[in-house]
Amino acid sequence: MLEATPQDFGRVLSSMCTEPCPPARAAADRFLATNPGDPGTYPEIARLEERAVDLLGEITELADPAGYVATGGTEANIQAVRIARNRADTDDPVVVAPESAHFSFHKAAAMLDVEIRTTPLVDYRADPDAIAEAIDSDTALVVAVAGSTEFGRVDPVPALAELAHDAGALCHVDAAWGGFHLPFTDHDWSFSDAPIDTMTIDPHKAGQAPIPAGGLLARDESLLEVLEVETPYLESSTQVTLTGTRSGAGVAGALAAMETLWPDGYRDNHERAMANATWLADELRERGYEVVDPELPLVAADVSQSIIDALRRRGWRISRTGAGDLRIVCMPHVTRSMLRSFVADLDWY
Amino acid sequence: MLEATPQDFGRVLSSMCTEPCPPARAAADRFLATNPGDPGTYPEIARLEERAVDLLGEITELADPAGYVATGGTEANIQAVRIARNRADTDDPVVVAPESAHFSFHKAAAMLDVEIRTTPLVDYRADPDAIAEAIDSDTALVVAVAGSTEFGRVDPVPALAELAHDAGALCHVDAAWGGFHLPFTDHDWSFSDAPIDTMTIDPHKAGQAPIPAGGLLARDESLLEVLEVETPYLESSTQVTLTGTRSGAGVAGALAAMETLWPDGYRDNHERAMANATWLADELRERGYEVVDPELPLVAADVSQSIIDALRRRGWRISRTGAGDLRIVCMPHVTRSMLRSFVADLDWY
Repeated sequence: MLEATPQDFGRVLSSMCTEPCPPARAAADRFLATNPGDPGTYPEIARLEERAVDLLGEITELADPAGYVATGGTEANIQAVRIARNRADTDDPVVVAPESAHFSFHKAAAMLDVEIRTTPLVDYRADPDAIAEAIDSDTALVVAVAGSTEFGRVDPVPALAELAHDAGALCHVDAAWGGFHLPFTDHDWSFSDAPIDTMTIDPHKAGQAPIPAGGLLARDESLLEVLEVETPYLESSTQVTLTGTRSGAGVAGALAAMETLWPDGYRDNHERAMANATWLADELRERGYEVVDPELPLVAADVSQSIIDALRRRGWRISRTGAGDLRIVCMPHVTRSMLRSFVADLDWY
Repeated sequence: MLEATPQDFGRVLSSMCTEPCPPARAAADRFLATNPGDPGTYPEIARLEERAVDLLGEITELADPAGYVATGGTEANIQAVRIARNRADTDDPVVVAPESAHFSFHKAAAMLDVEIRTTPLVDYRADPDAIAEAIDSDTALVVAVAGSTEFGRVDPVPALAELAHDAGALCHVDAAWGGFHLPFTDHDWSFSDAPIDTMTIDPHKAGQAPIPAGGLLARDESLLEVLEVETPYLESSTQVTLTGTRSGAGVAGALAAMETLWPDGYRDNHERAMANATWLADELRERGYEVVDPELPLVAADVSQSIIDALRRRGWRISRTGAGDLRIVCMPHVTRSMLRSFVADLDWY
């Protein structure tokens, strides 16, 4: 029917999504015609979603997790801001976030009519002193980033959570991409590492699940209850999600990916990706580029715009940081041989 | 992997979703690992989305349509309210909507911090006099429903659009479910029937596309531009969608469904569904129930809660209107023999 062909991932170095693992693809296909947003009509997929949330809780060290499989990190981040806004005891709620926070927080702030106050970084991470200075009595939420979109850096989550709670605010961790790497590192980022309230962790990124499968987790069900709207015409009575009809394929795919890969498959992915990122960083440094040392498998280097454009013309799908530097995400589909071939192409310039 | 099985649709009478048509299912599967939210990295699916929007324009009689394939009607309705709010020249924007407006408008109002003012119905439709009375200088948007969720009724769209424009407000038509039936009726509802600004029309409902595939259409690109946020780290520079990463499966599935079924397949679906709805309405009336005359293929009748509960125990997936009446949606998977078997079960009580 559609004569177009999706490109393969052979030259994709810019995406935080990847090829789903085969059991996840199969599960998505089987549950394509189900809607977890209508659990009365589709109870089977609603039960699978509970299992998916339980596994997300295991990965993020949260017993009895509340939450759901969202459309992606943007929805989860919007919902975290919305929870904080709805609970805030002020007419002018403020979100305090490091400059490294994903642009979805700016989208959330614009949508939800809250102020977002961003603070400068130190070594590509949130600076607790700057966050402390930005917090005031209107602060409803402090955002901590666990695996930043630009540099893969991890904020000092326990310090930010403490600052948030001292101010009577909530603390949200955005681990949309990092969440499936961080369990295999020494970082403090999880629900057991710090008194955080909500978290974004997306199966459809490093979790190797098919799109759409983001994750919103909350320490307690009562945090989600402030989002409830009534739902006539459904066999259930309230809804806390942002969207109404939701993708059963996304839920089933996320569960199948996590049941297949947690923990050993994700550990293998992490180790291979880190080895690739370290290798690439070394190769770029040897060629005289300045490289941001990769703590998670994401490499940024000061390759010029004209070279980036030339590599794009050779078919490489690469992206840039906000400052214009080259940015390469070592996803599961990114192999050493892809990177060798990329570096060989770079050597032409 | 997942031992659970999605139920088949053999007893589902409550859903506005259905089994996707086979080419749509195949297309969704092929484009599962693509992200139209990142058109720089995934240009193929971005081009398919343009074709999908063009076809939605053809169905709704809009040349050069602006819009995109959303996660569903809720996102499209939220976005329509957001467009109106962002353009409004008031600090306290108001949405005026008939009581029949879907609950997603209440969700949108709560999220976006706008007031929603609902007006009473006449014969299950918006009453232009009541709408006119509710409009004031703060009104940013007037909502018209083309195929209400409860009763399948169609508001007087041209009259509401005129009222909106006289007040300097936008007019949004929610044809999420009705949009794939209305081209085969005499109703005035489309972009050529009235000067409406935006519309919700969901391929994953009566369009027989797989979830997630809602549709947001706008008469002009400039309406969407008020939603733009900047997108560092992507190869494109701005984003108007609510979510970030989006489902390529949803986009490809929607396009394949529409290329397969528009117009003849949808006409056949409509005629079969209307015949089924009329048959069911007659059968229920013969048994003494009060039935809301079906104008689109949706039947509501005053069957008691205890009978509804008993039918549910027999495995029927049925839902209720806000007032508690039985509500049956004649989707493409709903056959005459299913309805005969449903009525036979009803005769036990």
